[in-house]
Amino acid sequence: MRSFRKTLTFQLPERMGFENVTTAVETAVRESGIREGLCLVNAMHITASVFINDDEPGLHEDYKRWLEWLAPYDPSPEKYHHNRTGEDNGDAHHKRQIMGREVVVAITEGKLDFGPWEQIFYGEFDGRRPKRVLIKIIGD
Amino acid sequence: MRSFRKTLTFQLPERMGFENVTTAVETAVRESGIREGLCLVNAMHITASVFINDDEPGLHEDYKRWLEWLAPYDPSPEKYHHNRTGEDNGDAHHKRQIMGREVVVAITEGKLDFGPWEQIFYGEFDGRRPKRVLIKIIGD
Amino acid sequence: MRSFRKTLTFQLPERMGFENVTTAVETAVRESGIREGLCLVNAMHITASVFINDDEPGLHEDYKRWLEWLAPYDPSPEKYHHNRTGEDNGDAHHKRQIMGREVVVAITEGKLDFGPWEQIFYGEFDGRRPKRVLIKIIGD
Repeated sequence: MRSFRKTLTFQLPERMGFENVTTAVETAVRESGIREGLCLVNAMHITASVFINDDEPGLHEDYKRWLEWLAPYDPSPEKYHHNRTGEDNGDAHHKRQIMGREVVVAITEGKLDFGPWEQIFYGEFDGRRPKRVLIKIIGD
Repeated sequence: MRSFRKTLTFQLPERMGFENVTTAVETAVRESGIREGLCLVNAMHITASVFINDDEPGLHEDYKRWLEWLAPYDPSPEKYHHNRTGEDNGDAHHKRQIMGREVVVAITEGKLDFGPWEQIFYGEFDGRRPKRVLIKIIGD
Repeated sequence: MRSFRKTLTFQLPERMGFENVTTAVETAVRESGIREGLCLVNAMHITASVFINDDEPGLHEDYKRWLEWLAPYDPSPEKYHHNRTGEDNGDAHHKRQIMGREVVVAITEGKLDFGPWEQIFYGEFDGRRPKRVLIKIIGD
């Protein structure tokens, strides 16, 4: 069994945003030389997500409005007790639970084994500082 | 290390529905011959889910009502900007995020290593056309 | 390829609660002797979750209020058809979908490959009875 590890770093200009990381993950799969296996891609920060969905700007706008309805940004310690710690990102810890921490993708014949529209995204909910994504691949 | 790959195809008659795929995944585990490992089961489409929960029709009705509250079907481009593309499935991309893309299940002594009530479901949110689920197993 | 399996048992005193299981998972990784691989940690019950987020009591209070808004406890069979079965935990099956069933964590150089604040939690939504978490590790 072989394994491969790589991290990616993102600094998004807004509090919330989505970045397509599919090409970067494909590069990691090639670098790994692994032909059959599993590829884990996860946010290393707890106010961010990695998820698979459509690369369509309208949908990303929909996600932002929807996540803001589900867990609105509010720096006050009344809305989020978490903000009593001096943080203002209580909302981001909720948004991340909706969108998920990680994806696991099959690798088949040296490639991400994807359906027609699957694309991997980094989802940021407390941006404007450098944050990391981990890629770990195991297989043969 | 060994690996095994298989896809399942579903065409559900309604826009939203749940199909128990546990037996099909158990068959794949047997076919793989793998005794110890991990089994990834994921939707290959971004308006569908694979999740683990109870095989109980009342619960599935509850899920449908709840998902419709969280992300109602609405073909208009006002509710979902995604529908400006000509699609009418903006809601389905949201429902799938709640229910998740994939499950990873342990394989122990040649079987899915499950608790007493765990069952694997395909969750469809934009049905009435053929869609695929990927099973990828790695182990020894 | 090597594999390792272990279960943990929890009996939480309240209906809903969160327990930090990071140290227990770290112990399992050491016991496994696996240096490079993947570690699956999943709830074996369908009214419970395993998730990764912050070990901060205010945030956990926020999660409880938020989950209660998303899927309020209500033993009546009107609110949740699932409760027609005689159960009163329809809400718990919904809360678990928000928080997720499982996490997959990379193992690198014999350790959980974590970002600065990542901690693994068992999330209970129908407690006061013994329930299990599965740890399955594969790698070399």
